[in-house]
Amino acid sequence: MMKQDIRVEFTSAKKPKPDPHDLAFGRIFTDHMFVMDYDADQGWYDPRIIPYQSISMDPAAMVYHYGQTVFEGLKAYVTKDQEVLLFRPEKNMERLNQSNDRLCIPLIDEELVLEGLKQLVAIDKDWIPKAEGTSLYIRPFIIATEPFLGVAASHTYKLFIILSPVGSYYKEGIKPVKIAVENEFVRAVKGGTGNAKTAGNYASSLKAQQVAEEKGFSQVLWLDGIEKKYIEEVGSMNIFFKISGEIVTPELNGSILEGITRNSVITLLKHWGLTVSERKISIDEIIQAHRDGRLEETFGTGTAAVISPVGELIWNDESLVIGSGETGEISKKLYDTITGIQKGAEADVFGWTTEVASLSETK
Amino acid sequence: MMKQDIRVEFTSAKKPKPDPHDLAFGRIFTDHMFVMDYDADQGWYDPRIIPYQSISMDPAAMVYHYGQTVFEGLKAYVTKDQEVLLFRPEKNMERLNQSNDRLCIPLIDEELVLEGLKQLVAIDKDWIPKAEGTSLYIRPFIIATEPFLGVAASHTYKLFIILSPVGSYYKEGIKPVKIAVENEFVRAVKGGTGNAKTAGNYASSLKAQQVAEEKGFSQVLWLDGIEKKYIEEVGSMNIFFKISGEIVTPELNGSILEGITRNSVITLLKHWGLTVSERKISIDEIIQAHRDGRLEETFGTGTAAVISPVGELIWNDESLVIGSGETGEISKKLYDTITGIQKGAEADVFGWTTEVASLSETK
Repeated sequence: MMKQDIRVEFTSAKKPKPDPHDLAFGRIFTDHMFVMDYDADQGWYDPRIIPYQSISMDPAAMVYHYGQTVFEGLKAYVTKDQEVLLFRPEKNMERLNQSNDRLCIPLIDEELVLEGLKQLVAIDKDWIPKAEGTSLYIRPFIIATEPFLGVAASHTYKLFIILSPVGSYYKEGIKPVKIAVENEFVRAVKGGTGNAKTAGNYASSLKAQQVAEEKGFSQVLWLDGIEKKYIEEVGSMNIFFKISGEIVTPELNGSILEGITRNSVITLLKHWGLTVSERKISIDEIIQAHRDGRLEETFGTGTAAVISPVGELIWNDESLVIGSGETGEISKKLYDTITGIQKGAEADVFGWTTEVASLSETK
Repeated sequence: MMKQDIRVEFTSAKKPKPDPHDLAFGRIFTDHMFVMDYDADQGWYDPRIIPYQSISMDPAAMVYHYGQTVFEGLKAYVTKDQEVLLFRPEKNMERLNQSNDRLCIPLIDEELVLEGLKQLVAIDKDWIPKAEGTSLYIRPFIIATEPFLGVAASHTYKLFIILSPVGSYYKEGIKPVKIAVENEFVRAVKGGTGNAKTAGNYASSLKAQQVAEEKGFSQVLWLDGIEKKYIEEVGSMNIFFKISGEIVTPELNGSILEGITRNSVITLLKHWGLTVSERKISIDEIIQAHRDGRLEETFGTGTAAVISPVGELIWNDESLVIGSGETGEISKKLYDTITGIQKGAEADVFGWTTEVASLSETK
């Protein structure tokens, strides 16, 4: 695609910034957003950064009815040298296009959108919080906008990038969470949309999540939709187990999301000389490993929480406390290393970070 | 719930009505819409009929990200006596609440929303087209509106009802369609959201539909997500087969939509003294029945198309022409009877229609 210019319209009314010690996840948004339109004649056109504002659309816009939408999530961090870093953003652009392909949404120019993302973060860089565990969450998303009630791919779309200064995803911080194995509801199945980041996967997960929360659990562990036997992922994260010193995670099978943190974790573990296997893992294998005292650690991986240690699994009312119920050694080391790389405190041996701005230039 | 008043704000600028002979499906909308809001404190509140207008929401509104949305579809018809009839609208309200339950959306007061729907149709009754095959399509839908990027059920919602004067759903009218049996993609699986009318089911169907259309087929025939062996539904309709004089349709299994037209068809066929079975039907059974010359008819059922005869099934590049490839006798009789009841030309022995207005009172 041809290189397009990104026009910028600055806000005339900057919003007050939140108390950095009182940040939740995804409730506050910055002063600007990136927008781009698509129609069949022009393709993706008019990339622009404009003041953060409401979206106004016809009630018949297809996104409200048929869920043709995809999204991504990544974060920007401030280093101790006041540099603003992104973590593997090109992987998010790549995955956005994989999701687009599954959802029949026209592919984007990954370079252009990444350039827009970087410019947006640079413009709103004063919004990036610096306290421990905080960051600027970046949410690119695309929605179908054609006002039409027939079930078909839309002919028009809008792409947005919005920014939200965030604290930890879980209120409890990096403390271990309790996870319930889900026996009734199914998140996704091979041939469905489980490996795309699209709205429907999340909508279908709400009921199981709600039931789990009522029982005092943080998330659910999804089993495969076919045999209800093999482990898929946990809540909105990928999952890893350490069994007898070996680290295992479910193989990508078409219904599991190809997590970027998952990929980073596998790369790091291998770099540390540990054995990592991507393979089918049955829930029975995990139960048995726990009974034999061989289930040493369990943790989820995802952009929002980075590493989320699992302290307890609930299976048919049976409670499996993992290790001592505390954060495991590998979980802690992964969390420290990845957040260290993200914040520029650890050596970035894999070239995962990209500098987009410096806070020391201005003011 | 307590009875709530529905306030009405009339438009000051009525739109021109479309040429009734040139109507497509779901592209033109009437002068007014019904809206109602939900928050945790007030429950569902402020039911109102207002001029048809854009929806303005924060870009972080949850519907754009996590697809927490449900919808319904039904139609209003004008009889030869100028009465406006609805067809089984209470069934749509009932199913809307079933979908709400699966999607963690607060239940609605079915009577109140039906009352709002009737008042809306009465106000915009001049928009109902009268030509053969035309009607007023009614689309109630609910969307999650909370501006929050965490994956959880929204705390706020909006319910809308919009109206669209429509021609036939298929451009080709009631002519038989070509349907491809889908082997790769899956629409839904037990434990998922297949039996709810929610956005994600439709988003996930687009890819298979697009591939089918490129090959010249109208829709796909979905197989079950577990064994890819049993027939589920076709495109966005339920499906029926007539084999050796017996009519069969897949049983409701948790992943098939509980169609209201499906229910009406079963009731009518039994009323006519025909044998109807709701059971598991494998694709192999259908292929074999066709080879043996026992597959006499195939048709889809749904609100949009009412009855959609299937003239040809494509299975692994093999073409199965059904009957003579023309509309079958039962399909035709069902179409004529149901549309006859809907338009007041046939006796409504089951009490399926509800009068909401008369066109002869005014003007």
